[in-house]
Amino acid sequence: MKKRYRNGEIWDFEHEIGELGNREVILGLDGGTTSTVCVCMPIFPFSDPFPDPLPVLARAVAGCSNHNSVGETAARETLEQVMADALLKSGSNRSAVRAVCLSVSGVNHSTDELRILNWLREIFPTHVKLYVQNDAVAALASGTMGKLHGCVLIAGTGTIAFGFTEDGRQARAAGAGPVLGDWGSGYGIAAQALTAIVRAYDGRGPLTILSSNILQTLGLSSPDELIGWTYADPSWARIAALVPVVVSCAEAGDRVAHEILQDSVEELALSVKAVVQRLGLCGEDGKASFPLVMVGGVLEANKRWDIGKEVVNHISKSYPGVLPIHPKVEPAVGAALLGWNFLMTESHKEACKR
Amino acid sequence: MKKRYRNGEIWDFEHEIGELGNREVILGLDGGTTSTVCVCMPIFPFSDPFPDPLPVLARAVAGCSNHNSVGETAARETLEQVMADALLKSGSNRSAVRAVCLSVSGVNHSTDELRILNWLREIFPTHVKLYVQNDAVAALASGTMGKLHGCVLIAGTGTIAFGFTEDGRQARAAGAGPVLGDWGSGYGIAAQALTAIVRAYDGRGPLTILSSNILQTLGLSSPDELIGWTYADPSWARIAALVPVVVSCAEAGDRVAHEILQDSVEELALSVKAVVQRLGLCGEDGKASFPLVMVGGVLEANKRWDIGKEVVNHISKSYPGVLPIHPKVEPAVGAALLGWNFLMTESHKEACKR
Repeated sequence: MKKRYRNGEIWDFEHEIGELGNREVILGLDGGTTSTVCVCMPIFPFSDPFPDPLPVLARAVAGCSNHNSVGETAARETLEQVMADALLKSGSNRSAVRAVCLSVSGVNHSTDELRILNWLREIFPTHVKLYVQNDAVAALASGTMGKLHGCVLIAGTGTIAFGFTEDGRQARAAGAGPVLGDWGSGYGIAAQALTAIVRAYDGRGPLTILSSNILQTLGLSSPDELIGWTYADPSWARIAALVPVVVSCAEAGDRVAHEILQDSVEELALSVKAVVQRLGLCGEDGKASFPLVMVGGVLEANKRWDIGKEVVNHISKSYPGVLPIHPKVEPAVGAALLGWNFLMTESHKEACKR
Repeated sequence: MKKRYRNGEIWDFEHEIGELGNREVILGLDGGTTSTVCVCMPIFPFSDPFPDPLPVLARAVAGCSNHNSVGETAARETLEQVMADALLKSGSNRSAVRAVCLSVSGVNHSTDELRILNWLREIFPTHVKLYVQNDAVAALASGTMGKLHGCVLIAGTGTIAFGFTEDGRQARAAGAGPVLGDWGSGYGIAAQALTAIVRAYDGRGPLTILSSNILQTLGLSSPDELIGWTYADPSWARIAALVPVVVSCAEAGDRVAHEILQDSVEELALSVKAVVQRLGLCGEDGKASFPLVMVGGVLEANKRWDIGKEVVNHISKSYPGVLPIHPKVEPAVGAALLGWNFLMTESHKEACKR
């Protein structure tokens, strides 16, 4: 019963909230490899367009909740804590929650989804609607304001392309982590840059200013020390944090850095094209328009060497109808909007049955 | 004092050995990412040629002792246990040891060497000579019978090329682990194969029989399940164990598997060429002969698709003087011979001083 005891501590604040907690809310969670965000949104009436700005009661942030990266126990603790924090900040308790939409990286299979659903069910009363999705789904919803149509490309520490058709078919590409070839990701870019330093040092590759710039950033004096640095900590985010250095080296004219970014662009574009083709998002003539929601630090780099812009250019050569969207709200808000949409759809269906 | 207590248990057998332990011995250790081997060899008189077969008193085997892979505590325990096992089997105790030559992967920097030396000093009496080397050095010595000249290429779970000139200069290439681009390694080959399965599945890459053959080997029913399988266990050796499946797919004519092996050949050859060029092992005209000791499961594949043979073909286009050697003794014996050579050299120097 250790678990229950821990739950008890996390949820202790609920005794203090009392009647304040009557306003009905939705929790939207975005759990990535680097951080986890939970927002608490009030239930607002079905309307078109959405209220602007969207009413967000509270926002809480925690660390990594990808169970493939930190293990299941740590992932669960992080998710439970961040939900409790968001409810505490909004002055709500669990009985006020109508729905939880948990969109978390590492959900790759229906068994992953079911495991998380079972565990959420231990935390929330039975009337609470629970939805578990891959984190890409919330990211798409953040660009389409809760509508599941089009494709999303995430490129942060990891990368994935995820698409939906209006009739509910879905497809994904990449998102399989660094061992399984997510080369366009922030981790992929930075690992290639570290590799280029080793290769320049041992004579396998050309000289590059990545060597001096990255070693200086890491406070290391020799490429020899990179090996110890790399394996001292298994965190992918720690390596991905070097992407800005690679971008600045490419902007300074370094050929090796430029080629690494160019490879990343091709890999990211390839993921999107694979999804678009499988779902037929481009129509039969390949020219139909479709939204491409672009999310993550690698695509947001507002620099001269703009990876996101190059990815769109690359895709538009095959699919000229691509409509890039840079979301105005964060993925956790996308998850809350998605939860709201699911809830409205279910309510509507139930009302029709009566 | 927990450490001392543990030592006490490991070395308990010494009380039983008594006078039997008077014969002087050398311990040679080869610590790789997959396993660790320790041999116990008697001191034999300086002679040329070596006794054939070499007298080996005992051999013990343990798991991984690369501190980058399993952590420092586990690596130390493994090394201590395997030395104790070899001494126990040979009926010797620590006071009979003249020299220990520990050749272990993960020794990349003088600080790594010093840390292991200090720790060995806690185990052995002060008169015991201690030598710590990267595991590539023992592998070279296993092909040259203890002489440090030429180049060794290891390709097992990991890969490294290491070379020595007769006047004592040394150079290495690769050996920086999977994150830092050891693509020709067993891990590299297998990770590329797993990646090819994911890419075929999500539409980014061509279809390949790697999918059915590897999934069947792993007992998985869908490529989706590969992600969970891959990250369930961080062992690199577990992934590298799939190399034979990749080789058999290439032999069956699969283009994707063939290209993965071809890439591996190019990467491995590039490592050797980088070392040969930096050390000038090929002479000024590039045609001088030099030994290339070839070690590790990837190079030993005695199949139609022979990676080792292709690597030599590739190198000989640049350096026709390459003389491939497949060692007749294992790297741990190479380490013992190296320890014997170091010991003889030191004894000779001391005798000259007198």
